[in-house]
Amino acid sequence: MKLVYKIWIEGDNKAFGEGPYKLLKKVDQLGSIHKAAQDMNMSYSKAWSIIKRAERELGIILVESNIGGAGGGGSCLTSQARILLNQYNEFCHEAEEILTELYNKYFSELL
Amino acid sequence: MKLVYKIWIEGDNKAFGEGPYKLLKKVDQLGSIHKAAQDMNMSYSKAWSIIKRAERELGIILVESNIGGAGGGGSCLTSQARILLNQYNEFCHEAEEILTELYNKYFSELL
Repeated sequence: MKLVYKIWIEGDNKAFGEGPYKLLKKVDQLGSIHKAAQDMNMSYSKAWSIIKRAERELGIILVESNIGGAGGGGSCLTSQARILLNQYNEFCHEAEEILTELYNKYFSELL
Repeated sequence: MKLVYKIWIEGDNKAFGEGPYKLLKKVDQLGSIHKAAQDMNMSYSKAWSIIKRAERELGIILVESNIGGAGGGGSCLTSQARILLNQYNEFCHEAEEILTELYNKYFSELL
């Protein structure tokens, strides 16, 4: 037996959680929404709408496009997005640790 | 913005979470799976299968039937079920408190 959970941030609608987190990490790594979408077996339009929805719900610009330049166009994270990803990552680690402790406290002898 | 989460206990499959918890509390209160199902706008067969699945996955008998007697038949929780509900309830309260704290720690300035 183990504890399973889904955690997300919500305003009027779902705003941010594991899905947008993984996608933005991939955009950061590959420097492009297009490449990130490909890498995650997702259509570009789906990736784009996930990012735009998170931006709209959070009220934060997350991704900026680089137009042209030596390496052609691409996308990079804003500094606000980097802060959000870092905070989210630390939040998840701490939540995982505490929920595992709580599970052991309340259920380890019972289940 | 707020944190939203779903937490459940899983073995090979979903075993126990908010749904079975609420149903079993109602069975305890009303003394009958039939009345509990009615009260929750759920068919008897659905209520029965939720309880049986939880029992199977957890490996714990949760509900006992009282056959006949002065007040007619009915169902009551086993002592193991009572322990599980109490532990689950305390777990949820503590998890809620801690996750709210964590949300404030990581996101209150950002969102």
